[in-house]
Amino acid sequence: METNQKQAFKSLYQAIDKANEIGVNANITILDPAGHLKAFIRMDDAFLGSIDISMGKAKTAMLFRMNSEAVGEFLNPENKTYGMVNTSGGLVGFKGGVPVKSGNDIVAYIGVSGGSPDQDFEIATAGSLV
Amino acid sequence: METNQKQAFKSLYQAIDKANEIGVNANITILDPAGHLKAFIRMDDAFLGSIDISMGKAKTAMLFRMNSEAVGEFLNPENKTYGMVNTSGGLVGFKGGVPVKSGNDIVAYIGVSGGSPDQDFEIATAGSLV
Amino acid sequence: METNQKQAFKSLYQAIDKANEIGVNANITILDPAGHLKAFIRMDDAFLGSIDISMGKAKTAMLFRMNSEAVGEFLNPENKTYGMVNTSGGLVGFKGGVPVKSGNDIVAYIGVSGGSPDQDFEIATAGSLV
Amino acid sequence: METNQKQAFKSLYQAIDKANEIGVNANITILDPAGHLKAFIRMDDAFLGSIDISMGKAKTAMLFRMNSEAVGEFLNPENKTYGMVNTSGGLVGFKGGVPVKSGNDIVAYIGVSGGSPDQDFEIATAGSLV
Repeated sequence: METNQKQAFKSLYQAIDKANEIGVNANITILDPAGHLKAFIRMDDAFLGSIDISMGKAKTAMLFRMNSEAVGEFLNPENKTYGMVNTSGGLVGFKGGVPVKSGNDIVAYIGVSGGSPDQDFEIATAGSLV
Repeated sequence: METNQKQAFKSLYQAIDKANEIGVNANITILDPAGHLKAFIRMDDAFLGSIDISMGKAKTAMLFRMNSEAVGEFLNPENKTYGMVNTSGGLVGFKGGVPVKSGNDIVAYIGVSGGSPDQDFEIATAGSLV
Repeated sequence: METNQKQAFKSLYQAIDKANEIGVNANITILDPAGHLKAFIRMDDAFLGSIDISMGKAKTAMLFRMNSEAVGEFLNPENKTYGMVNTSGGLVGFKGGVPVKSGNDIVAYIGVSGGSPDQDFEIATAGSLV
Repeated sequence: METNQKQAFKSLYQAIDKANEIGVNANITILDPAGHLKAFIRMDDAFLGSIDISMGKAKTAMLFRMNSEAVGEFLNPENKTYGMVNTSGGLVGFKGGVPVKSGNDIVAYIGVSGGSPDQDFEIATAGSLV
């Protein structure tokens, strides 16, 4: 299945609403299941450095079809996965990247950055409920 | 002045409306006046290759504070500006990138790709009327 | 607000004076508030490898609107922010990148490299007093 | 011989004076004879896209120890030097990059962008008279 424009906007707005509710200025990226950019918004006063982090989290979730922090577990130096963090142009392995599902199908990935990892996760989760 | 979220969504929607009206599936990029990504949408069925073209047009307009096709005039081989097209990570010098003005101030840049250059320009212009 | 040429030279000279005073050969980068290069000087005998470090510190400060070492706290492996250090083309999260303020407005970012992190911070701070 | 800080500032100021005289807002890059950045200034209101062009012109002059437009002659498609323009990270082969000489020695390279190629050349030449 494919991300559609209507869902993408819906995800952005749901994420924005949650971000406003918890007082975070977030960057929000929506990728399609193949990792191509579908939609993006940078909320006012969000960090410029979080643009790329939001994209990296969504991309990381997409590459392994799991939450970005689940990929992060593989990146823990204790696992001696030397260099894995640099693959595919750079992985971002902490909270904020999650699959967007419709039933059992992944229809998109959302990546959020701007607050703490826990806040970013909360915002991304809100955006993933399509 | 700075692009704000409300204006950015307004630009996207106006561009989408025009694209629908003329039957084009477009990629639409909104950059702030310094070139950082503010908003993006890929309409359903728009070419994946046009994601980067839309970004390149908006960036090119931003770098020289003029329409992307006006920058393109400098890139014409007749002018022997060898290599200029590759500067700043690559310029994209044809129609579809325009400044978004509020009065005399440039508040954003919009880049569109998906149709013909003339169609892209028409969509970008529609999106630039904030 | 925007960095201007006069301020940029003033920042460079103030940083150079401090560097001479404490015996450091420094690279000094001035970025505008959006991260575009405004001014740069490499003092005689300064390390070539410090050119990019000075730019990276200023860019890192700009991306998160805080000192580079404050960004560095987020990069501490204890925080498990795997891959964050590689985002936005690479962050540089130790002392030497600071905002340049005029009143409450950030008008530029300065990044310094050449001495110890503490020396670089001292030089950057001297350059930030416009 | 090596570029020194005093000469680098002198070059910048001479170039700025000429740019002001002829009404151009220029980006001015000073590279040492090995191509490493020595000094840079972006005059107020200069195009952001000209930052990289000024650097590219100076780099191109440095790589072949001649004016950037002299390198440009080799890039003319009539010469069938396919791909040469993309070498060394990208050449920029039009007016505005010139060697800075002290007697017969090249002590630096200056690259200028912001006006027409002829204006950029005039500014670069003014900056090259150390």
